[in-house]
Amino acid sequence: MMSLNGDPSIMSSKISIGILGATGVVGQRFIQMLEHHPWFEVAWLAASDRSEGKTYAEAVRWRLRSAIPANVAKMKVSPAAPEGAPKVIFAALDASIAAEMEPRFAEAGCAVVSNSSALRMQSDVPLVIPEVNPEHIHLVDGQGWRKKSGGYVVTNPNCSAIGLVLALAPLQARFGLDAVMAVTMQAVSGAGYPGVASLDILGNVIPYIRNEEEKMQEETQKLLGTMNGTRVIPAQFAMSAQCNRVAVEDGHTESISVRLKTKTEPQEIIAAWNDFRGEPQRLKLPSAPERPVVYLEANDRPQPRFDIDMGAGMTTVVGRLRPCGVLDWKFTVLSHNTIRGAAGAAVLNAELLKATGYLD
Amino acid sequence: MMSLNGDPSIMSSKISIGILGATGVVGQRFIQMLEHHPWFEVAWLAASDRSEGKTYAEAVRWRLRSAIPANVAKMKVSPAAPEGAPKVIFAALDASIAAEMEPRFAEAGCAVVSNSSALRMQSDVPLVIPEVNPEHIHLVDGQGWRKKSGGYVVTNPNCSAIGLVLALAPLQARFGLDAVMAVTMQAVSGAGYPGVASLDILGNVIPYIRNEEEKMQEETQKLLGTMNGTRVIPAQFAMSAQCNRVAVEDGHTESISVRLKTKTEPQEIIAAWNDFRGEPQRLKLPSAPERPVVYLEANDRPQPRFDIDMGAGMTTVVGRLRPCGVLDWKFTVLSHNTIRGAAGAAVLNAELLKATGYLD
Amino acid sequence: MMSLNGDPSIMSSKISIGILGATGVVGQRFIQMLEHHPWFEVAWLAASDRSEGKTYAEAVRWRLRSAIPANVAKMKVSPAAPEGAPKVIFAALDASIAAEMEPRFAEAGCAVVSNSSALRMQSDVPLVIPEVNPEHIHLVDGQGWRKKSGGYVVTNPNCSAIGLVLALAPLQARFGLDAVMAVTMQAVSGAGYPGVASLDILGNVIPYIRNEEEKMQEETQKLLGTMNGTRVIPAQFAMSAQCNRVAVEDGHTESISVRLKTKTEPQEIIAAWNDFRGEPQRLKLPSAPERPVVYLEANDRPQPRFDIDMGAGMTTVVGRLRPCGVLDWKFTVLSHNTIRGAAGAAVLNAELLKATGYLD
Amino acid sequence: MMSLNGDPSIMSSKISIGILGATGVVGQRFIQMLEHHPWFEVAWLAASDRSEGKTYAEAVRWRLRSAIPANVAKMKVSPAAPEGAPKVIFAALDASIAAEMEPRFAEAGCAVVSNSSALRMQSDVPLVIPEVNPEHIHLVDGQGWRKKSGGYVVTNPNCSAIGLVLALAPLQARFGLDAVMAVTMQAVSGAGYPGVASLDILGNVIPYIRNEEEKMQEETQKLLGTMNGTRVIPAQFAMSAQCNRVAVEDGHTESISVRLKTKTEPQEIIAAWNDFRGEPQRLKLPSAPERPVVYLEANDRPQPRFDIDMGAGMTTVVGRLRPCGVLDWKFTVLSHNTIRGAAGAAVLNAELLKATGYLD
Repeated sequence: MMSLNGDPSIMSSKISIGILGATGVVGQRFIQMLEHHPWFEVAWLAASDRSEGKTYAEAVRWRLRSAIPANVAKMKVSPAAPEGAPKVIFAALDASIAAEMEPRFAEAGCAVVSNSSALRMQSDVPLVIPEVNPEHIHLVDGQGWRKKSGGYVVTNPNCSAIGLVLALAPLQARFGLDAVMAVTMQAVSGAGYPGVASLDILGNVIPYIRNEEEKMQEETQKLLGTMNGTRVIPAQFAMSAQCNRVAVEDGHTESISVRLKTKTEPQEIIAAWNDFRGEPQRLKLPSAPERPVVYLEANDRPQPRFDIDMGAGMTTVVGRLRPCGVLDWKFTVLSHNTIRGAAGAAVLNAELLKATGYLD
Repeated sequence: MMSLNGDPSIMSSKISIGILGATGVVGQRFIQMLEHHPWFEVAWLAASDRSEGKTYAEAVRWRLRSAIPANVAKMKVSPAAPEGAPKVIFAALDASIAAEMEPRFAEAGCAVVSNSSALRMQSDVPLVIPEVNPEHIHLVDGQGWRKKSGGYVVTNPNCSAIGLVLALAPLQARFGLDAVMAVTMQAVSGAGYPGVASLDILGNVIPYIRNEEEKMQEETQKLLGTMNGTRVIPAQFAMSAQCNRVAVEDGHTESISVRLKTKTEPQEIIAAWNDFRGEPQRLKLPSAPERPVVYLEANDRPQPRFDIDMGAGMTTVVGRLRPCGVLDWKFTVLSHNTIRGAAGAAVLNAELLKATGYLD
Repeated sequence: MMSLNGDPSIMSSKISIGILGATGVVGQRFIQMLEHHPWFEVAWLAASDRSEGKTYAEAVRWRLRSAIPANVAKMKVSPAAPEGAPKVIFAALDASIAAEMEPRFAEAGCAVVSNSSALRMQSDVPLVIPEVNPEHIHLVDGQGWRKKSGGYVVTNPNCSAIGLVLALAPLQARFGLDAVMAVTMQAVSGAGYPGVASLDILGNVIPYIRNEEEKMQEETQKLLGTMNGTRVIPAQFAMSAQCNRVAVEDGHTESISVRLKTKTEPQEIIAAWNDFRGEPQRLKLPSAPERPVVYLEANDRPQPRFDIDMGAGMTTVVGRLRPCGVLDWKFTVLSHNTIRGAAGAAVLNAELLKATGYLD
Repeated sequence: MMSLNGDPSIMSSKISIGILGATGVVGQRFIQMLEHHPWFEVAWLAASDRSEGKTYAEAVRWRLRSAIPANVAKMKVSPAAPEGAPKVIFAALDASIAAEMEPRFAEAGCAVVSNSSALRMQSDVPLVIPEVNPEHIHLVDGQGWRKKSGGYVVTNPNCSAIGLVLALAPLQARFGLDAVMAVTMQAVSGAGYPGVASLDILGNVIPYIRNEEEKMQEETQKLLGTMNGTRVIPAQFAMSAQCNRVAVEDGHTESISVRLKTKTEPQEIIAAWNDFRGEPQRLKLPSAPERPVVYLEANDRPQPRFDIDMGAGMTTVVGRLRPCGVLDWKFTVLSHNTIRGAAGAAVLNAELLKATGYLD
């Protein structure tokens, strides 16, 4: 039985989790977000070979403002292999490594809650935002690993897709989506650490992020697609993304235009966003923001410097709704790329899995 | 008769010009660009009342890397009134001041070559990019000032429109334009000085610039419109702009999508850009770049930090042409906002006016 | 009797305070810091004439990440005059305005807790850091206002002096100070809003801040001076400051060298910092950090991006102690310039005044 | 016989040079500075193994605004071995590689003009700024390589030392130096490419650069030392450096305090700087700035954004001279770290070697 309140006397009832890629920017966010988590506790950390055997504090170049949790700081970094690892694994690996590593852990019976792009578009791997398409998690029932060892892989989307899809889902539900154009201005933390060189980005915009536009396009359509028995039919609207990197630490800003299937009024659209709630809110998942999407009325918001921490970084912030001369409506979307766009997305997925019996 | 070579012995044959708004960011660029100009020489400077009577060096907060030209540094700042001013005036005033001041100078017989938005959309005021719509300058013949005193006003577009229109003109000419979506990431110098506060832009994106989207939309259609007797019929394609401010000193980057009237291939589009030449190139105007539009093949260019100085800041740099899932094609445009987007635009307009007899 | 726990049922027992200069960067920090304050509650706001009569939300350009407290947002901005103002006033005014305004409020019987430089160096005005020279507050007893109306003025130091003095005080106490060299790299928020133009600071260092070096030098010596009856004898060590502005939002970093009167070992110096406690800690003042000074062992810390929030922005963070080839020791000091360096300094001063009976 | 005028008909008379570390930030500057050099022409490029066999354009991630010179772009990158290399080598290698590589090239008979720190402090290796200590080049006569094969190594100082020493040399000459305190604010280009991660420096100051303070201290004293027969006696003043990294692309700013041996007046000091000339000016070396040191009168200069290009990046710019409360005088120094502080320093050294017969 699970404790929701984190009382240390029943600490042992928390679910032990492991983190693959624990020293990276997203791995650090996992550790930060899980420090006081009522359901999960960090019990195992793995990173690249050169970190192995060191304590976490020695191995990591910690890039967050809050301190490394004391118990994690002293933890030894383990080899990245399923032997000795807990049964629930958060994975924040580069795609090329994830492609090989995540199946190994699933094969060994682990629930792999992955932030990597490696398996996201595989037809039997759920790509999930709990407010948007929680029912997609049932795809895991068709995974070979699940049948053999009980293990499986669940993924969350790319950091540029997740804010967009949270803003689109209420529009799709109420008005239907016909076309979506997205231009992003993405923070440097999205590229990991060391990631973007300062000589590349100071006083600059880089109009290219490798594979990002493709991911953003195909993931958006899978996320907004519908379950048809054991597979997902991608949503059928037209979609185009252009991705840029800007000199911002955290927070992806996106200029969006959409064509809707139903004519509507601005107040209706704003209401769709502000009223939007999903399974995480209904189930009161620990990391669920009270409101997944918030519309700001000020004419110059949202802005990363001021608005990324809304809902503890789990709320997508929307603003500047106005008519579009080419499609129907245009607006600005902001999302915290390493919280809602990465670590927080995976933690919320894990909470949904727990609440729906997939971690029992 | 005019000297093209700047030989000091015939210095007096240069046309004396005055600058309204000489201490602002654009006024400074005028002075920088005219320092060694073969046709024009700065003879008169005006700025706000508090600068009056000071030398230019005392009045200005010079924000360029090159030094203030010695002769200009010592010039006294004059009152902003046509009495005593030369007959050719470059104007870099705030719109609200320009609305009152530019007509006064035109009334007094001056050729006002303006960078301000105040009169741009007036039906008898030409809005001109010499490579794109040089024939629009004939609108001045219908201006009341012209008839009375010989004075007139010619304008250049907003800094966000000019790069876009230079990239669109070759496409319109060869393939026809059906729809244009533009999302900008604009440099802080576009807001003048002091302009954008550092507390507003460090580590930030501001998704709003007052009136900018409206200007960008309507100016683009006027610039690409056709002369019909004594008026301009705006181009009829659909157009939508979203304007953002980013932490870049100089250079507006724009993510563009277009739908063309004619199906074509990428090589054809790239050729349209690279082959594009206009009147300034034909007339060999002193400030005309050899190539008004250049396409870069590298997959991550153009970038403001590296590419804004192409063609001495007068070339629009394009890159990343690829198919768009909503319209037909998408690409990135970069333009130097205070050179091609402001001072250089006006200087090139003045050169066109000279070459076509409007300054005689 | 005072409530320390903020129980809303006894809210009325809190001390009403007013804020002069409520819309500025420091005024905003006052409001943020006082939102849940156990002793004080914001009851009155004044700003410049153009804000008068507006609600605070309308008048302010809020530049903090947290939201405007709801009750403050709706408050009307009052004229900046003592009539109708509470008896405890936090002042965050420009020096020239403060010079005239603060005496008016003191004259009218207010306790003016000021962040302005206007009166700091006046011989009967205490300049106080509660951990360093709490006894200096008794200077108010000699103020003419105090005798007439009960009103008085207490000041806190400049944002560049306060971090330095907190780092110096433990050294002065244990080893004696003989000479101090300080070079600062100061955040843009120290210049208020709009303050530093982005065109001035992007990619730049500005090696000059008006009057800052003078303030830093003379304030440091007054703060570390000794009460001699009714006046302060400034500390007698040699002192030199060089002040630079850098592209940092919050947090002044300072490279310091000192010559001490007593020879010592690095561990002794580090112990002096880490062991340092003052009246605020003894009295458990609500805004007192547990540790006023913390030494970090990592060889590349402190850094503003990661360390300014230590002790909720009230802790001075020191690092990199090593021998100096000219004086004895060198080290780096970091302090949050708008919390410990401004609003938090004044709040802590007010708490000290309350705890020592000066607000009764 | 040598052509000084770059007449292409006698192009072949230029001296062929090779570049070790050609793809790095300093290697790129070498190529840029040598594009139109009247004496030297780039004939050979070497970089790390993974560049070998590629053309330079393929191998390099070019980070400068000017284009890669066309002839260099097509050049094949050679293995980093003396076989087939020209007899004059500019070296821009990491210290650990340089320690092994530079002796190999000197052994093989090459004149190695090095920007690396590896051998700078070796007693028989000259560390030279041509305006400051040109006579130190004679140290090469004592090098074993020179005796065996004619090869030798000459070095230039660290980018943080060179600006400082150019500002100190005129003071030492006229007034004598007793103590020097330096606090630097160094640009990210000083760390090479990719170098400083954007997540480390955006909105930040890093108060630590590995080994930089040691290099700055010991190199300054060697540079200002005197030749005593076959060795250099380091200058004997006290010296202390504190080195910080800031979010600036190019240009190291330094806050300096000095104690002089002779009492003097500010005008005397300023005159010492403005009058300073050295061998490069006397010999009219092609890369010598007209004035090695320039004092700016404006109270807020020098600033990297506006002043680094003075003298084509070869002039050290000084400002803000004022009395120091601890030593005698304080002032600010600015120097372009990849031109005068690296590539330009080496090119000027090579020009001095040529002019004094060491390349014959």
